[in-house]
Amino acid sequence: MKKEMKKKFNYLLPPADLWPNFALESQGAKLVPQMTSATFHNNRTCRLFGIYFQQQPLGPNVVIQGRNHLSPGQCWAFAGFPGRLSIKLSHRITVTHVSLGHIPKSISPTFTVSSAPKEFSVYGKKHLHDQESLLGTFQYEEDDDSLQTFKLPEENMDSFNHVSLKVKNNWGQLDYTCLYNFRVHGVVET
Amino acid sequence: MKKEMKKKFNYLLPPADLWPNFALESQGAKLVPQMTSATFHNNRTCRLFGIYFQQQPLGPNVVIQGRNHLSPGQCWAFAGFPGRLSIKLSHRITVTHVSLGHIPKSISPTFTVSSAPKEFSVYGKKHLHDQESLLGTFQYEEDDDSLQTFKLPEENMDSFNHVSLKVKNNWGQLDYTCLYNFRVHGVVET
Amino acid sequence: MKKEMKKKFNYLLPPADLWPNFALESQGAKLVPQMTSATFHNNRTCRLFGIYFQQQPLGPNVVIQGRNHLSPGQCWAFAGFPGRLSIKLSHRITVTHVSLGHIPKSISPTFTVSSAPKEFSVYGKKHLHDQESLLGTFQYEEDDDSLQTFKLPEENMDSFNHVSLKVKNNWGQLDYTCLYNFRVHGVVET
Repeated sequence: MKKEMKKKFNYLLPPADLWPNFALESQGAKLVPQMTSATFHNNRTCRLFGIYFQQQPLGPNVVIQGRNHLSPGQCWAFAGFPGRLSIKLSHRITVTHVSLGHIPKSISPTFTVSSAPKEFSVYGKKHLHDQESLLGTFQYEEDDDSLQTFKLPEENMDSFNHVSLKVKNNWGQLDYTCLYNFRVHGVVET
Repeated sequence: MKKEMKKKFNYLLPPADLWPNFALESQGAKLVPQMTSATFHNNRTCRLFGIYFQQQPLGPNVVIQGRNHLSPGQCWAFAGFPGRLSIKLSHRITVTHVSLGHIPKSISPTFTVSSAPKEFSVYGKKHLHDQESLLGTFQYEEDDDSLQTFKLPEENMDSFNHVSLKVKNNWGQLDYTCLYNFRVHGVVET
Repeated sequence: MKKEMKKKFNYLLPPADLWPNFALESQGAKLVPQMTSATFHNNRTCRLFGIYFQQQPLGPNVVIQGRNHLSPGQCWAFAGFPGRLSIKLSHRITVTHVSLGHIPKSISPTFTVSSAPKEFSVYGKKHLHDQESLLGTFQYEEDDDSLQTFKLPEENMDSFNHVSLKVKNNWGQLDYTCLYNFRVHGVVET
């Protein structure tokens, strides 16, 4: 199979699409709104910088709905850094990987993904009010696959009920960052 | 094409995705609620057995919406056996095949599909209050493709307006069975 | 890769799925209802001619939601000719291509796509009340790919904020025409 074709196939079915996702809302995962950043509400000026959001901005739940067909603008936008998304997982797990998805450059109206997250960290904790443990720091690459999967260092073998995503910066958009898809992979505690 | 790749391609586009489906709600098929099992409402104890449902359980309509991207928990759950789903088809047809879909083991949080249907029968009738004719009895295999298609024996060449699915047992889940996708294929009476 | 496989792959991921679409609602495009045809409301007689619509017919917005999994009946129906869909694009662009999608014959209950658009024209204008410029006239082929992309003649290099689709006839359905998907491709004015 040619490289081009492989890339397209990977776009249709990224490997992580065949893994369990413990941050999936339909599976019982829940957002923790009080520990999640506020949703960005665009105003007219924001039209100047690329995508012009739907009237009613989407809330953070869209990020944990496991969508695999990403449509420009169907994302959760937040302003400023760090941006935070806090999730109660569907099961208590040892986290092994996380996945972050964004639309590819090719379908962006400006051929850029300036609103995509860049550096981000992932944290775990057992109970809502526990202190968080850092599980890893990664970078979402603007030119890589649309859904990127990151392997956690193996030293964190504890299990957690809560996972938080903290986005440190993005690929250049000054007003907001857009999250399309965040998934948490791992092994259920038995 | 390698076997692995063929399997993935089949997951993305099962052959029956390119056949007409006469149990498709958007095409005019309708559930017959009074002949369909009650929806299972989970309570806290159910969290112990795997998937923890969304707050508001989904009704049986989700099963006839022709979804092809199945997400764990986005199914209709019923308790006890036999479980029954009764549908008024969009057209009067001679039924040739039926398809039943469930999430694959690989994306299940417990790597099992214990809530998947196992043995089931399909019945047809012309009018709502007619007696039903048995069209076939089949088994959904836990290790086969996510969407499985079953060919009916050729002796039933009569045409029907209504089809019922009766699920006899499942793959081990004691509390409920989950249906993700049921489709009815055949030839329109002319 | 065999021809059959290529065709299926193209069904899963048509080339235009990887292009920006400036008629995408989530990206900020908007319908102009006062310049769009009325939605066809079916009545009982219409059941005789193939697809029997959902109780509540879908409005024209479904056509600009960028869906890539088309389900029979999940379309916007209008009666009579010409049928008109008028869109304020998400960005001011030089239009290079448009795409029109319909379900393939293979999944149609009658194995026909008589309600698919046939001849159509595309117009552009800068402001809502400007006169329209004809950008091109094309034909959607009933036996070609489900999503068909049409290249505009190169003489129209002006940029536009509004695009209209005018459907001249269909493939035989007497009562209504169904639009599943309309996309506008091009280059953002800089």
